[in-house]
Amino acid sequence: MTCKRFAIFLFLKTINYRNIMKKLAMGIDIGGTNTAFGLVDEDGTIFSESAISTEKYKKFDDYEAYIKTLCESMHALIGSVSFDFELIGIGIGAPNANYHTGMIEAPANLWKFRDDEPNPDESRRMFHFVDDIKASFPGVDVAITNDANAAAIGEMVFGNAKGMKDFVVITLGTGLGSGVVSNGELVYGHDGFAGEYGHITVDSRTYGRQCGCGRRGCLEAYASATGIKRTAFELMAKMSCDSELRETPYSKFEAVMLSLAADKKDPIALEAFRYTGEVLGKALADLVATTSPEAIILFGGLAKAGKYIFEPTKWYMEENMMATFKNKVKLLPSGIEGKNAAILGSSALIWQKQIK
Amino acid sequence: MTCKRFAIFLFLKTINYRNIMKKLAMGIDIGGTNTAFGLVDEDGTIFSESAISTEKYKKFDDYEAYIKTLCESMHALIGSVSFDFELIGIGIGAPNANYHTGMIEAPANLWKFRDDEPNPDESRRMFHFVDDIKASFPGVDVAITNDANAAAIGEMVFGNAKGMKDFVVITLGTGLGSGVVSNGELVYGHDGFAGEYGHITVDSRTYGRQCGCGRRGCLEAYASATGIKRTAFELMAKMSCDSELRETPYSKFEAVMLSLAADKKDPIALEAFRYTGEVLGKALADLVATTSPEAIILFGGLAKAGKYIFEPTKWYMEENMMATFKNKVKLLPSGIEGKNAAILGSSALIWQKQIK
Repeated sequence: MTCKRFAIFLFLKTINYRNIMKKLAMGIDIGGTNTAFGLVDEDGTIFSESAISTEKYKKFDDYEAYIKTLCESMHALIGSVSFDFELIGIGIGAPNANYHTGMIEAPANLWKFRDDEPNPDESRRMFHFVDDIKASFPGVDVAITNDANAAAIGEMVFGNAKGMKDFVVITLGTGLGSGVVSNGELVYGHDGFAGEYGHITVDSRTYGRQCGCGRRGCLEAYASATGIKRTAFELMAKMSCDSELRETPYSKFEAVMLSLAADKKDPIALEAFRYTGEVLGKALADLVATTSPEAIILFGGLAKAGKYIFEPTKWYMEENMMATFKNKVKLLPSGIEGKNAAILGSSALIWQKQIK
Repeated sequence: MTCKRFAIFLFLKTINYRNIMKKLAMGIDIGGTNTAFGLVDEDGTIFSESAISTEKYKKFDDYEAYIKTLCESMHALIGSVSFDFELIGIGIGAPNANYHTGMIEAPANLWKFRDDEPNPDESRRMFHFVDDIKASFPGVDVAITNDANAAAIGEMVFGNAKGMKDFVVITLGTGLGSGVVSNGELVYGHDGFAGEYGHITVDSRTYGRQCGCGRRGCLEAYASATGIKRTAFELMAKMSCDSELRETPYSKFEAVMLSLAADKKDPIALEAFRYTGEVLGKALADLVATTSPEAIILFGGLAKAGKYIFEPTKWYMEENMMATFKNKVKLLPSGIEGKNAAILGSSALIWQKQIK
């Protein structure tokens, strides 16, 4: 490059920097009840957000109407922003989402066949979600992954895993999800479905707890909001002590009741947390042997029980860990948790690429 | 670039290609008995190889003499090659080796303190192996990792994992080692020690088998050459059938005897393989849920038992796998196994960087 050309290049660079436009990424979180979405900047500030019902469109035939409503609502949200900005991409977190193919594959609670469906072939329930969104946002980068992976990227970009190259996020909600980051990259695996740590077997006996996946004894049947509820009911049968927990039927019982009861030193609640921490801590010790993370972040509803779940989990994790790893791995709460954590996590799918 | 400059550039490139020199990488495999090393080209051909005793230098004070002998022998090997070549690097596979730090950290069988050592502080048994080799080969790229990781890179560069981005190698030798590759990169973890899948707990009962790591119930106490031997002895006590295996004492028993007995349909040998496959297959199903590999490669002594170990392992792996992953994951034998597999694997640490 000659001196003259270099001067022109520098001049153009300067102009470019002076006129730089605000960049925002759209984050979409698809839940069984609602689909929330918002515009997020590089610092994790949400400038504008909205939601549509997912439940209203839960039948197979409703999928196209759902996509249409979602895209229209997103365009409306974009139109409502009062300043000019560049939409750098759309990141989506959804159950059964495949990062490699951009598809949502046979989700348990979304776009299901009606009971009178003449041909209920599950292989038809493969939704080209990324392509369908792209059709309405031509030229925009669109990426999808499952909720736990989105949470992991969210922690890496905006939360407690900033600057980490090797860590794990465990989501403790209705089920147990996991997002494993290694060498600064999410472990998607060959088929895009890696990170199903909720479905390792922790009780291989024939009478292990039934799991939603059709098998028995999976980790998530013990260590999740649903799992600890199941434990509490087992303990009501095993233990003879008084407990306010005995007043609520199974169908109305929520995991948060265990935190409230533990505050009052309810022995069943305390034992339920100890046992859950034992199962989870032992499973995490095994995960450490495999992936040797800098930190494990507990995310989601059950993690909000704080010390009740963190203390026993940490204790059993250390107790069962190989000496090489002892006292090296941090057990952390989420750094992005809040009502918008899922939107942040999904938008981070896009922001992550910008930061690299 | 002007046309004239471009012409000169092309001319220089042509000269460069015409005079290109053969490139070789040195692979070193440090075992408890011997240290083998050889010069390997990009196709995995070993041009020259040699070995020195490791055992002779197994005391802590012998470390410097060991390094001196090893480097002298390597220089001699290089000098013995009859054609000109470029040494592009030295790759080392060793127990307890840390890729990040270049150190061998407190190895169980190498450079141990004498019984009369006045200050047997284990923290002193940290050997700056990469630096010590570099001192004798200034300017040469030197890298180290543990044997299972070296085997995994060896499979990726020369063996059955060519072209794969997500796979796992399980080494079934005296212990069980693992090398996990995700997104085309080895999972070293934050501290460089990831991949200790031999030390997940498969039997958490208080009477689980004792493991060399000081804990109980580790996978490698069941699924390894030593593990299947322990199983055979348990079965001799449990089963009443005749068996030639009952003629050999524990101290003289080798895992290979089980393959020979299985060929003769010995019921104890067959049951030992079935049980080992059950434990290993279930553990691999869990590993699949976490990492979703394209293939799992079984490497090392016990894997040489062929169908006796592959068939039950595959069956129990599929039987215990989450539906998402069923019939997707290949269970393969090693593609580099042979007497030089470890040298190839170590040299692949260097070749991998060239191929990228």
